[in-house]
Amino acid sequence: MKKPAYNVAVVGVTGAVGEEMLRVMERRSFPVANIKLLASSRSAGKPLEFRGKEHAVEALRVNSFEGVDIAFFSAGGSISKEFVPIAVDCGATVVDNSSAFRMHDGVPLIVPQVNGAAVSTHRRIIANPNCTTAITLMALAPLHRAFGVKRIFASSYQAVSGAGARAIAELREQTKRVSGGHKVEPEVFPHQIAFNVIPHIDAFTGNGYTKEEMKMQNEGAKILGLPGFHASVTCVRVPVFRAHSVAVSAEFERPVDLDAARAAIREFPGVELFDDPDANHYPMPVDCAGKDNCVVGRLRKDCAFENGLSFWVCGDQLLRGAALNAVEIAELVIKL
Amino acid sequence: MKKPAYNVAVVGVTGAVGEEMLRVMERRSFPVANIKLLASSRSAGKPLEFRGKEHAVEALRVNSFEGVDIAFFSAGGSISKEFVPIAVDCGATVVDNSSAFRMHDGVPLIVPQVNGAAVSTHRRIIANPNCTTAITLMALAPLHRAFGVKRIFASSYQAVSGAGARAIAELREQTKRVSGGHKVEPEVFPHQIAFNVIPHIDAFTGNGYTKEEMKMQNEGAKILGLPGFHASVTCVRVPVFRAHSVAVSAEFERPVDLDAARAAIREFPGVELFDDPDANHYPMPVDCAGKDNCVVGRLRKDCAFENGLSFWVCGDQLLRGAALNAVEIAELVIKL
Repeated sequence: MKKPAYNVAVVGVTGAVGEEMLRVMERRSFPVANIKLLASSRSAGKPLEFRGKEHAVEALRVNSFEGVDIAFFSAGGSISKEFVPIAVDCGATVVDNSSAFRMHDGVPLIVPQVNGAAVSTHRRIIANPNCTTAITLMALAPLHRAFGVKRIFASSYQAVSGAGARAIAELREQTKRVSGGHKVEPEVFPHQIAFNVIPHIDAFTGNGYTKEEMKMQNEGAKILGLPGFHASVTCVRVPVFRAHSVAVSAEFERPVDLDAARAAIREFPGVELFDDPDANHYPMPVDCAGKDNCVVGRLRKDCAFENGLSFWVCGDQLLRGAALNAVEIAELVIKL
Repeated sequence: MKKPAYNVAVVGVTGAVGEEMLRVMERRSFPVANIKLLASSRSAGKPLEFRGKEHAVEALRVNSFEGVDIAFFSAGGSISKEFVPIAVDCGATVVDNSSAFRMHDGVPLIVPQVNGAAVSTHRRIIANPNCTTAITLMALAPLHRAFGVKRIFASSYQAVSGAGARAIAELREQTKRVSGGHKVEPEVFPHQIAFNVIPHIDAFTGNGYTKEEMKMQNEGAKILGLPGFHASVTCVRVPVFRAHSVAVSAEFERPVDLDAARAAIREFPGVELFDDPDANHYPMPVDCAGKDNCVVGRLRKDCAFENGLSFWVCGDQLLRGAALNAVEIAELVIKL
């Protein structure tokens, strides 16, 4: 669908990811003819800026998608389940940030640098992966191409922004209260997040892993095109505002080589190598907040896997894990 | 060496662990005849309370150990290297919290609940293990007994108190400054710790792991009596005041069973099971600070290991990882 510019809708535009999508489209000069800002009726009328002009947020309705070419959804799974088919019926192509369609056959699940070519198979819905999975794959995919990944063990250190704007406010508020010696009453998170870590993100599944943890294996297998991919993951919320970190040990089919691994990461688009431990140089969330590229470091031969590498990857999950990845997907779509 | 009470010295008494040792001896009614509080000359004269009485800190000197039966060392590796042999020459039995002697032949390295019997082999020096290793082993040892551990992958979430009293102050101060929108200048940690995580604890070794990370394999193998034990670890500092957490995936020789695993942990002394994810009940550092027992939860069959279990363990590293473990070692020593 080649046009000089597109009518674009952003569903969930008042959330942390939604707002970020506007900023990403601005700085990447995404060819927007008209922008439609959609959210719940609570936010209707709220003015938001796009390209220096104020636009009023509209309440999401069944007729919101008339004339829309591309709709970005970032308002949670149940909104996507209800409104994505409506948008498609209206002729829009949807890039969906929720988990609603990710594992559906016929819905490509895309990290552009990893499996961007699969966008061509889309039938009007393209799914944006889980943020921790996307960030991990930005480091794992080049290593997989070099050595052939079999399985990984990973632990995440996930920022509160992954839980939205209210979560960011909760960490800020709780930090003040705890620092002042007061008790806190968690609202967004199940427990105190200030000066604590919580080994629980998303709902628990029957096997003792959370949904968030199983996404690494399920979405990872689909994105890498590797049905036998295994990932044992522990997802943990940490008191960091923005940018996720993941510690990964990966086993490969073929013998690994550190120089080749470093070269593979350096050559991969969207990733940088911060790997000079002697100079205390490695990725950290404070250095990755607001950064498009994911950053990899602490690369070493794994001491418990025969053909293994361990590494540490950080990425801004509002960007690579969500808004940037979604806009990059749309950039691929409009080239088809 | 059975006596009704012992002359006890605490070296490094003004540090976070040293002070905790006094509190642990008080509440466990360790049979102290006289207490000698030792630290650097900077702290000499500082009054510290023990059993309701003030004692002045003395500067550590070569003649500090005359008449001392038991000396606890917690003042870092170089002080231990210099003064532990002096204390031993004076007739004291030393429980050393530093890494100086841990891997020496003839120096038992003890977690009382795991390998307490090995205390009997001591020749006046007994080593207290690395805190993250001790906490991890409190969960791993019962599972090892049940299924026979081969290797583990672990990621730590380590509190600032592991780096001492100044580190606690640094997190507090940085939190205020960052919350107020100011820049911070790290002193204790290599980078900002407030609202950040740092994948770097202790010095880097030639293989890309840090010393802290390799302790899990090296000390773990010694404590478990399992020379072929492999541990691939990423140690990470998180903005938590007190209590470490560790995410572990472990592979075993024999098939695992979740009920048997839970029973093994429940029956092991010094460990509790908080494992009711549906009720949002799992271990967290805020619930483990100041707690003697380590707490295990998130127990599940590992999805990437054939005979594997994943779990999450939290423990107060000033207690299990240091002061409590040391005093428990001394309790074993005086029973010999």
